[in-house]
Amino acid sequence: MEYRIEKDTMGEVKVPVDAYYGAQTQRSIDNFKIAQDINRMPKEIIKAFAYLKKAAALTNLDAGVLSAEKATLIGKACDEILAGKLDDQFPLVVWQTGSGTQSNMNVNEVVAYRAHVINGGQLSDKEKVIHPNDDVNKSQSSNDTFPTAMHIAAYKMLVEVTIPGITKLRDTLAAKAVEFKHIVKIGRTHFMDATPLTLGQEISGYVSQLNHGLKAINNTLEHLSELALGGTAVGTGINTPKGYSENVAQKIAELTGLPFITAENKFEALAAHDAIVEAHGALKTVAVSLMKIANDIRMLSSGPRSGIGEIHIPDNEPGSSIMPGKVNPTQCEALTMIVAQVLGNDVAINIGGATGHFELNVFKPVMIFNFLHSARLIGDGCVSFNDKCAVGIAPIEANIKKHVDNSLMLVTALNTKIGYYKAAEIAQTAHKEGTTLKEMAVKLGYVKPEEFDAWVNPIDMVGEIK
Amino acid sequence: MEYRIEKDTMGEVKVPVDAYYGAQTQRSIDNFKIAQDINRMPKEIIKAFAYLKKAAALTNLDAGVLSAEKATLIGKACDEILAGKLDDQFPLVVWQTGSGTQSNMNVNEVVAYRAHVINGGQLSDKEKVIHPNDDVNKSQSSNDTFPTAMHIAAYKMLVEVTIPGITKLRDTLAAKAVEFKHIVKIGRTHFMDATPLTLGQEISGYVSQLNHGLKAINNTLEHLSELALGGTAVGTGINTPKGYSENVAQKIAELTGLPFITAENKFEALAAHDAIVEAHGALKTVAVSLMKIANDIRMLSSGPRSGIGEIHIPDNEPGSSIMPGKVNPTQCEALTMIVAQVLGNDVAINIGGATGHFELNVFKPVMIFNFLHSARLIGDGCVSFNDKCAVGIAPIEANIKKHVDNSLMLVTALNTKIGYYKAAEIAQTAHKEGTTLKEMAVKLGYVKPEEFDAWVNPIDMVGEIK
Amino acid sequence: MEYRIEKDTMGEVKVPVDAYYGAQTQRSIDNFKIAQDINRMPKEIIKAFAYLKKAAALTNLDAGVLSAEKATLIGKACDEILAGKLDDQFPLVVWQTGSGTQSNMNVNEVVAYRAHVINGGQLSDKEKVIHPNDDVNKSQSSNDTFPTAMHIAAYKMLVEVTIPGITKLRDTLAAKAVEFKHIVKIGRTHFMDATPLTLGQEISGYVSQLNHGLKAINNTLEHLSELALGGTAVGTGINTPKGYSENVAQKIAELTGLPFITAENKFEALAAHDAIVEAHGALKTVAVSLMKIANDIRMLSSGPRSGIGEIHIPDNEPGSSIMPGKVNPTQCEALTMIVAQVLGNDVAINIGGATGHFELNVFKPVMIFNFLHSARLIGDGCVSFNDKCAVGIAPIEANIKKHVDNSLMLVTALNTKIGYYKAAEIAQTAHKEGTTLKEMAVKLGYVKPEEFDAWVNPIDMVGEIK
Amino acid sequence: MEYRIEKDTMGEVKVPVDAYYGAQTQRSIDNFKIAQDINRMPKEIIKAFAYLKKAAALTNLDAGVLSAEKATLIGKACDEILAGKLDDQFPLVVWQTGSGTQSNMNVNEVVAYRAHVINGGQLSDKEKVIHPNDDVNKSQSSNDTFPTAMHIAAYKMLVEVTIPGITKLRDTLAAKAVEFKHIVKIGRTHFMDATPLTLGQEISGYVSQLNHGLKAINNTLEHLSELALGGTAVGTGINTPKGYSENVAQKIAELTGLPFITAENKFEALAAHDAIVEAHGALKTVAVSLMKIANDIRMLSSGPRSGIGEIHIPDNEPGSSIMPGKVNPTQCEALTMIVAQVLGNDVAINIGGATGHFELNVFKPVMIFNFLHSARLIGDGCVSFNDKCAVGIAPIEANIKKHVDNSLMLVTALNTKIGYYKAAEIAQTAHKEGTTLKEMAVKLGYVKPEEFDAWVNPIDMVGEIK
Repeated sequence: MEYRIEKDTMGEVKVPVDAYYGAQTQRSIDNFKIAQDINRMPKEIIKAFAYLKKAAALTNLDAGVLSAEKATLIGKACDEILAGKLDDQFPLVVWQTGSGTQSNMNVNEVVAYRAHVINGGQLSDKEKVIHPNDDVNKSQSSNDTFPTAMHIAAYKMLVEVTIPGITKLRDTLAAKAVEFKHIVKIGRTHFMDATPLTLGQEISGYVSQLNHGLKAINNTLEHLSELALGGTAVGTGINTPKGYSENVAQKIAELTGLPFITAENKFEALAAHDAIVEAHGALKTVAVSLMKIANDIRMLSSGPRSGIGEIHIPDNEPGSSIMPGKVNPTQCEALTMIVAQVLGNDVAINIGGATGHFELNVFKPVMIFNFLHSARLIGDGCVSFNDKCAVGIAPIEANIKKHVDNSLMLVTALNTKIGYYKAAEIAQTAHKEGTTLKEMAVKLGYVKPEEFDAWVNPIDMVGEIK
Repeated sequence: MEYRIEKDTMGEVKVPVDAYYGAQTQRSIDNFKIAQDINRMPKEIIKAFAYLKKAAALTNLDAGVLSAEKATLIGKACDEILAGKLDDQFPLVVWQTGSGTQSNMNVNEVVAYRAHVINGGQLSDKEKVIHPNDDVNKSQSSNDTFPTAMHIAAYKMLVEVTIPGITKLRDTLAAKAVEFKHIVKIGRTHFMDATPLTLGQEISGYVSQLNHGLKAINNTLEHLSELALGGTAVGTGINTPKGYSENVAQKIAELTGLPFITAENKFEALAAHDAIVEAHGALKTVAVSLMKIANDIRMLSSGPRSGIGEIHIPDNEPGSSIMPGKVNPTQCEALTMIVAQVLGNDVAINIGGATGHFELNVFKPVMIFNFLHSARLIGDGCVSFNDKCAVGIAPIEANIKKHVDNSLMLVTALNTKIGYYKAAEIAQTAHKEGTTLKEMAVKLGYVKPEEFDAWVNPIDMVGEIK
Repeated sequence: MEYRIEKDTMGEVKVPVDAYYGAQTQRSIDNFKIAQDINRMPKEIIKAFAYLKKAAALTNLDAGVLSAEKATLIGKACDEILAGKLDDQFPLVVWQTGSGTQSNMNVNEVVAYRAHVINGGQLSDKEKVIHPNDDVNKSQSSNDTFPTAMHIAAYKMLVEVTIPGITKLRDTLAAKAVEFKHIVKIGRTHFMDATPLTLGQEISGYVSQLNHGLKAINNTLEHLSELALGGTAVGTGINTPKGYSENVAQKIAELTGLPFITAENKFEALAAHDAIVEAHGALKTVAVSLMKIANDIRMLSSGPRSGIGEIHIPDNEPGSSIMPGKVNPTQCEALTMIVAQVLGNDVAINIGGATGHFELNVFKPVMIFNFLHSARLIGDGCVSFNDKCAVGIAPIEANIKKHVDNSLMLVTALNTKIGYYKAAEIAQTAHKEGTTLKEMAVKLGYVKPEEFDAWVNPIDMVGEIK
Repeated sequence: MEYRIEKDTMGEVKVPVDAYYGAQTQRSIDNFKIAQDINRMPKEIIKAFAYLKKAAALTNLDAGVLSAEKATLIGKACDEILAGKLDDQFPLVVWQTGSGTQSNMNVNEVVAYRAHVINGGQLSDKEKVIHPNDDVNKSQSSNDTFPTAMHIAAYKMLVEVTIPGITKLRDTLAAKAVEFKHIVKIGRTHFMDATPLTLGQEISGYVSQLNHGLKAINNTLEHLSELALGGTAVGTGINTPKGYSENVAQKIAELTGLPFITAENKFEALAAHDAIVEAHGALKTVAVSLMKIANDIRMLSSGPRSGIGEIHIPDNEPGSSIMPGKVNPTQCEALTMIVAQVLGNDVAINIGGATGHFELNVFKPVMIFNFLHSARLIGDGCVSFNDKCAVGIAPIEANIKKHVDNSLMLVTALNTKIGYYKAAEIAQTAHKEGTTLKEMAVKLGYVKPEEFDAWVNPIDMVGEIK
């Protein structure tokens, strides 16, 4: 490979001749040879940086501390990043400095050098028209840009991927809840036969879980909407022009179309990432819901002949490399594996969030890496589960009917007629002797046949159907 | 010990002669010999049951399905539980049936038998005036009472212990932030010297964290205010009178003075405890904040001679059994240990929450056990930390001044005057040669002495002080 | 309450007149009002301290730095603690100083003052024959005694409660594996019908899990056998007589009958508790195994009429307060709740273990609190699960036979005869048309009836039965 | 893109015309659109499959159930995978079926079709010389191949990356411990000044931690060495020739050079992955150690002027985009972020491991994904931390001397001379009045100046130096 020489405050570094990045990016590549093939800084963070660098340039222009020419050039380079044209210029990994300084500098360098080239310059020019620190990073520090990028990336992922994914699945399940609202089936508690409910009612519980989960996520957006930018090095805003914090947040809001505001307290915004911890707390709540839902669905569809078999889900692929004709609930499996991942990510985020010190939390990259991973997995996972599984849920009515008709727990309807103790005796004896409830109820002399028929009727036991 | 014979639907059981509980409680004692000396069902759950049993009796009375005499007797027994008079009648442990059925029955039995005695009966009477299942448990199931008790206990703990504890600490820190708002000190990022801020600003970050944490907790109260009661066995409300759900929630709200309502979807309310997962997600966020705060405070007070030593905290006890005169930041240690516990409890709750199946989650006791533990620890821990540590935080001004005066990072103020690269050269050379910044800045010829004095002034670097 | 005045290096403190503890214990009660009713320092730690204080006294005697009279008195007081006679003298909670200094001093005070009384003195005597620091704590520091007590308590709990509990369950399951080794049943993968195996084979997998788990626990005992005692304040052994470390470890080994040795590196032994982290890593592995086993058993016993119903487990108690005659797999529920707790405790321990600094880890109490909790729960939980559930596992042969006979996955036996694709066609078509495999195999012309009978035979599909 | 038509038991699928994979791989791409850009099945799993497919072919050849020609062709294709020539043929993600069936089929398809092409055939040929299921997958199931690949990949990563990385760091620290063994410095407990030790002693604690960690990892290799292969569908070994399990494990051992054996119990080996849980338990223990070590090193090197500043670590890159000349402990930050990740991964693995059911655990991909991630991060992270930080640790002797000389905790040496209480009075008064210990000791009349000099000597307080 051919190289050129780049310089920073520590000296000279060899950089690939056509790389838009410079010395500090290259130092990071050389210094952090850790999982470089699998753990690049998430692209969402790079794009978030592009928004904020452009917004900062515009704000600096308005404040009179950056020329229009420079602001325009910086903006153009940022637009190219947003368009995905410079994706290969961001080779750094998550496992770098905990402030993300090197990714901030990576962006500063690429924006500066690309702007220089856009302006007609050459990468090999000693002096460039835009300087990474003095221009692109003007009125900024890694310490306030990286957390700002974290909030931009997190917020965008939530509203563009996570929430729509959950909502899509919620809507499908809500429609199923209505569709199946009159299908009476056996309830199961402790994995044991219980009193009946309808299949629609059962599914309505999932819908309610997801509705609460969506509300929980939405509750955390406000904290995420607060941006650290303007705090610079330690939160005091050193080296920023007057009004900068509010103005740059406003610009970011405009560029992204999202309701970002400047954080009221910049000291928190640099030193702690509780907003990430809190928002991931909502994501893990949704993960917990999804585990319940996916587990139920795979157990309800178990069989085909020796399981519960009350619903059918789509057959998407051959299920076994050795057992011919086998079909498995693979979407449930992908989704529940995602849940395991999200619950693990939560712990990584908690530890990162808890371990900041003094004026800076230096677990920023690992926190946002895990956050974006979870938010993406939940969003994508819900869509996949929806499209390839939930939309095709269908009752297997023969099995449903057989199960509810056989149930001994219909005896519960007799509690209010003959008392809990006599009802228990009926159920236990019927179980022991293998009879129906009605046979045993009459045999024991506790009810007459016509009373039994009047009192014990599954459809009457499911309450009001909404 | 002397015994009497009690009976349930499975047969006879020997019970201590003067125990107010009956056969099912005794079976649970015998069947679950697991950590019986250390893991009793939390007393807050027992009291929450007392509220709900009384509320259910009153609602059943209004619905015409329970006599006034019985409702009154049940209410009296419940009042005794609330007054703490029957504490030793609830010997069951957390590690029982996952629905908490046995604790529900423990309460049913104690209320019934105590009511019978209040009414002038004897524990040895074969027939009792109140029946545990048919009267005390009327219109209820373990499956809706236990989750109702969970929400009552959790909500009460949050508003009575957790939130007041956090608020107390927040208020103390807020006062300190104001008190110290003009004390300029060195900032630290990456544990390394950085640009200055004031001690008040530093503490204001903690205040902001706690304010956000309080908001996060408050956001979760709405979900917790939803009660499962009225869902009975599987969520359908079998065996409840008309209007029961709304009315009993209303009664509980009245008795507790808290804004409880009936859950819109009872299927979720029995089968999932996402409200607990979500609310604990807020608690773990606060735990993360407290780790940051307590760590900072112990490091800022480290020394007395070879640490940072910028603040003094109260000396509460001799710190060492071998090193005479040693004093340690023990309140910080208790609080950070609490954080570790809360972050562990969070995982236990997640796993419990994720592992419900069909119509019932059967990890109820372990979930509420961990929730109440965390909520209590945070509340108590904040009060202890506040009273024995935070209130006594005082600056050690000599050390603070020495640190800020020596700092090389004051050079940052020169960025906007001479550029980042020259400023870096000044700082690096001063560090290498052990000089002051000013000496080196002048020696290198980048600024004049009077410029340095005008441009580099810590108080000018801390921004606007609010 | 009546009080007497006690003194420490910080001044005077009021102590209950008949308490054996002194000023420092009382300060801790006053300073740490955190969950005092529920989180006392585990009694196992107090007893471990009694062993080590006695061992230290004997070692100091041998080294000529403590008189025989004092050593004898200290030993007597320690023996009383071991006999449980002084249980109420240890009121401190887990949430104290992170080194456990106050519990060390609590023991020092109680041993000293009780020894004084044994010697004929009065608690109100100004001067006592034994001094808490200079005699009971001689050649010790909290910093080496508390971690020593942690290892003693952890090791004892593992070998006295945890390992025996797991072993008991393992033995029962091993006997069941043999008993049921010829009962051919359907296999299930992905919750879906798969090729057959025997019930004994299925259970043998659980046995193998527990055997591996026991091996994993045993692998961690060696690290736990290393004792910190002799490191004193920071690991250097300041203020200890020559040979003290080895000798005191030897004494502890003799007193406990366990193979304790002195830690090779005392700096690690005070500053890190990786042995606890590692050993709990083995406990969480067993917890994971138990979740699998308990889940399987409750699902295999599900029903009675609309579940899998292939095994019967004991009916221990009425299962529902509303559904008469219901019986639930409550032991499975208690055990799986324990698993959730252990997996949560693991995280608390990890965080505590990771957060030690310099010469001392100050998360000692929370680490050992969680460790002992887990070790106890697993031990007790396995015994309860064994005695009240596993011993009673019995096959329900009618259901087992029905399931295996109906299975479409018996078609797998045809792979090696007619290839995977044709076999798949048979299974899929039989499933669609609701026929038996044989009918469809013949109808499609891939096998002759007599070939089918020869090739497809469940008992031939379960491999060699050992 | 151009396509060809491929077929499986479910019908036809369009596949890129030059892809070596077939219908089932394509179905998985289409069905699992989840994080496809970031979460591919780890390449280590693909290579492990190549070993096992080749080993299976050779074993089938020996058993007389596969022709030599087919075995040779399969072997050649596998060798190409091992050489990295077919890397782009494995596009599937982690989030697929939980048995990894689709990745098994991906390998089966690529091996079969590539073998066909090696043999001179065309991808477009209807019939191919090698069949994915009947030849490449012969005597196998996803259910035993995937867990076998898990153990191969995990074992290889541990011995090739993780253990060497930890060992390298351990060796560097061990050399530093020797190099610095006579440098007396202040000890710190609770972040507070304590009695002295040497810098070498302090570092020896880290060495001991890593030694114990290496032992813990090694203890788990035995369980990982057990291979599931031969269990096929449910553990019974259906459709395998006699002696297959032992022989194929032997072949894998030969091909990899690692001591793999066949698992004694195949039912466990398919249904549970406790070996992964257990081995990751060792990895998390090492992670906990690394957090301690990296935290200490960054705090000991903190400053340069207002921190502890007792050691110097290499300056690798400019530390701040705004503060000129700042250098930060970035390798410590990368390593501690890795720790957070590993502790999160541990929870994901625990949940996956705990949630297997009946004859199969279907969290296989998520478990091995997290395991390999952790093992890689620890290995790479230790090397990076070693090469760019630990090798350059150097004492800053002036600061070290100043701290130890000032320490009040040297008073501990007086305990055995004048008792703990008088010693405490000296230290407390010296602290209050700002004097040296000696001045105060003499002033209080407890020791004579020459006694003080004889008794209080830091070098005498650090014990025997080994």
